[in-house]
This record gives sequence, structure tokens and C-alpha cells, in this order.
Amino acid sequence: MRLQAIIGKRRQIVVVSNPKVFALHGSHFINTILPSAQRVTPIVMGDGERFKSQTTVNRLYDQFHTLDMTRDDYVIALGGGVVGDTAGFAAATYKRGVHFIQAPTTLLAMVDASIGGKVGINHRIGKNQTGSFYNPSAVLIYKDWLATLEQLDVVSGLAEIIKAGFIGSKNILREVAGMNPEYPEGDMALIQNLIRQAILFKAEVVRRDPYDRDDRVILNFGHTFAHAIEKADRRARPKHGLAVLAGMVGAIHLSHGVGYLRRASTNSLLSFIAPFARYAPHLRSDNDDYIDAMVADKKKRSRVFRFVLLRGAGRPVIFETDAGARVRRAISFMKEFSAGRNEI
Amino acid sequence: MRLQAIIGKRRQIVVVSNPKVFALHGSHFINTILPSAQRVTPIVMGDGERFKSQTTVNRLYDQFHTLDMTRDDYVIALGGGVVGDTAGFAAATYKRGVHFIQAPTTLLAMVDASIGGKVGINHRIGKNQTGSFYNPSAVLIYKDWLATLEQLDVVSGLAEIIKAGFIGSKNILREVAGMNPEYPEGDMALIQNLIRQAILFKAEVVRRDPYDRDDRVILNFGHTFAHAIEKADRRARPKHGLAVLAGMVGAIHLSHGVGYLRRASTNSLLSFIAPFARYAPHLRSDNDDYIDAMVADKKKRSRVFRFVLLRGAGRPVIFETDAGARVRRAISFMKEFSAGRNEI
Repeated sequence: MRLQAIIGKRRQIVVVSNPKVFALHGSHFINTILPSAQRVTPIVMGDGERFKSQTTVNRLYDQFHTLDMTRDDYVIALGGGVVGDTAGFAAATYKRGVHFIQAPTTLLAMVDASIGGKVGINHRIGKNQTGSFYNPSAVLIYKDWLATLEQLDVVSGLAEIIKAGFIGSKNILREVAGMNPEYPEGDMALIQNLIRQAILFKAEVVRRDPYDRDDRVILNFGHTFAHAIEKADRRARPKHGLAVLAGMVGAIHLSHGVGYLRRASTNSLLSFIAPFARYAPHLRSDNDDYIDAMVADKKKRSRVFRFVLLRGAGRPVIFETDAGARVRRAISFMKEFSAGRNEI
Repeated sequence: MRLQAIIGKRRQIVVVSNPKVFALHGSHFINTILPSAQRVTPIVMGDGERFKSQTTVNRLYDQFHTLDMTRDDYVIALGGGVVGDTAGFAAATYKRGVHFIQAPTTLLAMVDASIGGKVGINHRIGKNQTGSFYNPSAVLIYKDWLATLEQLDVVSGLAEIIKAGFIGSKNILREVAGMNPEYPEGDMALIQNLIRQAILFKAEVVRRDPYDRDDRVILNFGHTFAHAIEKADRRARPKHGLAVLAGMVGAIHLSHGVGYLRRASTNSLLSFIAPFARYAPHLRSDNDDYIDAMVADKKKRSRVFRFVLLRGAGRPVIFETDAGARVRRAISFMKEFSAGRNEI
């Protein structure tokens, strides 16, 4: 088995997971998927964004230490983005780095969080503000796990796949066009194919810019608005991918507003995303709250707004503006879109 | 100026230092050495090993955040190993890595701590047990700063230079042989030359093994004993380089004990190191305390003792043993050596 070849023999494995995921997949993962020769210890951390913290990392350090872990041992993150980011940061910094494997269990983590080497935690100075780049030796993706996901989690993962389509992969766009978001379980073979393509696409962007200093910024398409929604509407805890769907609607509108997209192309992109974007979260806040949240966005370079916009499908472009009014109109449009308006 | 070329324009610089170093060099460094166009903010952290902590790193994060630092800005560590390791780890993990420059002010940090990319902090699970590999864009070495060092700090730095000589650089051994450790201030031109050679030697070892998985282990010559001394005699706070001098005496003795060095070569190496090793700390603990401290050494791979020994000058070899009696004899010899015995 290839996993055996990666891990090798006579090594200790620690599987970090959360209670929900571990109940679903833990026993199967440890008893069936992992090589049997190793000593395997599961460590269960809390479920949810608030556990992506220094406190959790310190507890992981303590447990690694109690297990007498060395830099020859493996940490495997079994879960979604929170588990992967937190366990990955602990693995990256314990003894300056032990071996690390990602085993993502959500579609979103499979196509996005587990690819690209970003690990880290939240800190009082902000979300995802401390961390490092630390690539796993392997990302293990088990298609059977997709069957345990709820529909909204599938759509949330599809959002990042659709994003990859908009910014670069026409193939992805073509295949997504044939999907029925109301019944994604019926398209599992298609989804598996999309996962492969989305990973290959992101991996190629990351390869060109491993430390997120240049090209990789295009992966933020839809994310300036999405981060603002996640921040302003944080009490409603919108799912990341669903916020990205709303954010892509805003970015398409803004691309038209600044003259990058003609009306026909704009409406064509909007009608493409509409069946998915109907699952986007309801925008609960005033336009100004989103604007305020954007100014504090971590991707900003100065006091201007920074977006990835489209000059067409597959043609992303970075755009900066200090024209708040234009951004505000895009926010209004996101609200109208989620209320049923599907065209500009 | 080359520093200007590295840093570029329109960037913010944060200089992390400690009160003692900043009083000596801060104003000169900021006003004379740093390019004048930048906004420069000094941050002073506590002086001493106990400030190499998560608490200090969290305070640095807070201050970076208050200064609105971006990943385009620079952190410069101005100080010895504690400042370099702590500020380096904060720089490595703030926003997943901002630009970083080492400006070491001790001889030990110039030839050892600032070279090789190791940054990190102490944690309740142990010294240097959490951190990462993060190379600075530049290491700035100002020979004038050497003149402000006390003699014991010069000898402490020379220890790591001598180590480089023993494990690989005959040139270094030849030049050190001409030095007078009682009056190192008289040999400043020679020391500058040695700094250059020691850095080139370490950089080459690190280049072959950037993540400390293979070849780099030879840099631990003398360090198994040194770490045990630092741990068992921690109340006396021995200077690292001075503990390494004692540790090299132990490693030379052990190299003879296991049959790697003949009596004549052993005594020749011992007489070479003797004028420096007379500054080694007095070993205050029972032999068993050093043995216990060694078993918990971070470089161990299992329950055996692991040493870098010599088959001759420039011929390091990794040696593992579970024979405590032999190790205990080497510890006894370190004690006798520091009491005046100079031969086996």
C-alpha cells in the first residue's frame, strides 16, 4: 500500500481529530487504512473554530511530549480545516517539525485547506494571523467519506471548486455546469473528478508561489467579500464556502462595475453560479459593516480595498480601489441576488 | 549600501532587542547602519533565557499588529541568541512569515545561533522544543561590536569556532592554535577571520541538511555533555560556549574510551583545547545527575546515549551506546580536567 511506503516502519503515529469526525471515521481510519505495524494514538481536540488556538496547540505539544514523540514520528490530521490547520501548526513547530499528513474529511478541506501548506491558528490579533507554511508528506483523500457529508457541506466545498473554475480551469466550469446542487449525492463520480482537477489546479498555483507573495493572490477571488461577511455576520457562523459563493457574486458585479465584464458576460457568469449561490448565507448586516470589516481584512496592503476580479472566465486580475461607493453597490447587489434577483 | 539593496524602499522596520544591547548599540544601529528612509520602531524584550517564551512572542505579535505590520515589512533581531531565536520565531509565524534579518551582537550568535535558520522558544515541555526553520534574508555582522564583549563571552563564542575546527576545518584549528585566550582582545583581526571561516563551515553543513535530519548532527560535537551540564547545573547558568568546551573534553575522552582515538592523538587534542577549557564551568553535580539529564536530551532517538565523537581532527562520527559506565568515566574526566589534569 502506498501509505505504508510513505510512512515506513517502526514509527509512531498520532492521529489528531475532533469528536464528531473521530466517531464517524476514526476506527475505520486506524484499523483499516493505517498500516498495522505502527503504534497509533488518537488525540481528540475540540470541534469548532474557537479551538483553533494557542491553547489547543499547547495541549498537543504536551501530549506529543508525553508520548515521547520524535521528529521521525507522524502527525496525521483527520478532519476539516480547523483540525488540519491546528494539528498542522503543532506538527510544524513541535521540535521544529515532525512528519505530517493531511487526511481531510470535508470537501472544502479536500480541495482547499489541505492543499498549499498553510497551517496556523487564530490569535487575539485576528483570525489566521499566526502560522507557517508547512507542507504535508501526503494528503489522503477517501471518496467514501464524501457520502457522510451534509448537502450544505458539499455545496460549501463546491464553492472553492467553482472558484478554481472561474479563475483558471474551463474544464471545471464545463463539468460543474452539469451538476444538480440540490442533489449533489447523485453526482459523486463527477465530484470525485472535480476534486482531482481542483487540487491539481491549486497545486500548480501554489507551486508558482509557495509563500503567497505573488500569483497565489488569485485564489482570493470572492474572498474579500467573503471575509467581510464572515466577520460582520460572525454570530450566524456562515460556512466558509457559502460565504465565498456570495463573495463571488459581489466580485462578478464589481468586475462589471469597473468595466472588466460586459453585461452579457456578467449575466452569463451570474446565471452559472445562481443554482449554488442560492445556498449562500443571508446578509444580515448594514452595508457599512461589511465595508468596515473589509478595511481590516488581512489581505489588505494599505487603506484601499483590494479584490481579485475577472476580465472573463479564466482571466483573473487584481484590482485596488478607494471608491467605497462602488464596493457598496456590489454589496447591495449581493443582498438583492440572495433575495432572488439573478441579473444586473 | 548593500543593506539598503536588501531591504529596499518604502518598508517598515521593527528592531527587536533587549535593554542591555539596545543601550549599547541601538542608537548607532538605527541612525548609522539602517537606511534612513524607513520608519523604524524599536521593541525591547526582556534579557535572559526565561524571556525566550510564548509570552514574549505573543507580546511581539501584539506590537506588530499595533504597528500594522504587513508581510512586506522587516523584523531585525539585534542581540544574542535569545533575541534572535525569539524575534525570529515571531517573524516566522506572524502572518505566516514576515521578512527577517539577524544582527547578532555576541560572538556566539555571530558564528552559531544566527546561522542555520533555527528559531524557536522554550516551552513547558522543554528548552528549544518548539520552533521552526526560518532563514533570515541576511545576517549583519559588525566587527566593531566585538570590542564591547567581555572576555568570557569571547571565549564562549570561540568554543563553537573551535568545535567547527575539530569536526571539519583544519584551517580554523591552525589559526586558533596561535591565539591567546587570556587576552582575546589582542587578536581581533584573527577573530574576524575565524568568524568568517566558522560561518562558511556551518553554512555548508546546513546547506547539505537544512532541516537537521542527517549531516547536521555533527554540529552537536561536545553538545550531549554540554546540554547535560546546562541542565544539571542550571542554577549556575553556565554560558553555552563554556559548557561546550567542557563537553568537548568529555567527547574527546569518550572517543579514546571507545577506541576511536589513540592516546597520543587524544592528549594532543586535549592540550589544544586546554587553554580555552580552563574557562569551562565548574561541574557541580553528581555524575548521575548528568547521566539523568542526558537521557532526557532532546537529541536522543531512544533510550541510548548519542554522541558525536572524533576519529581524529576533522573526522566526526556518530556513536550511540547504552553503556552508562563508559559515559560516567568521561564525566569524571571532565571534572578532573577542570581541576587541572590535562592528560588521559
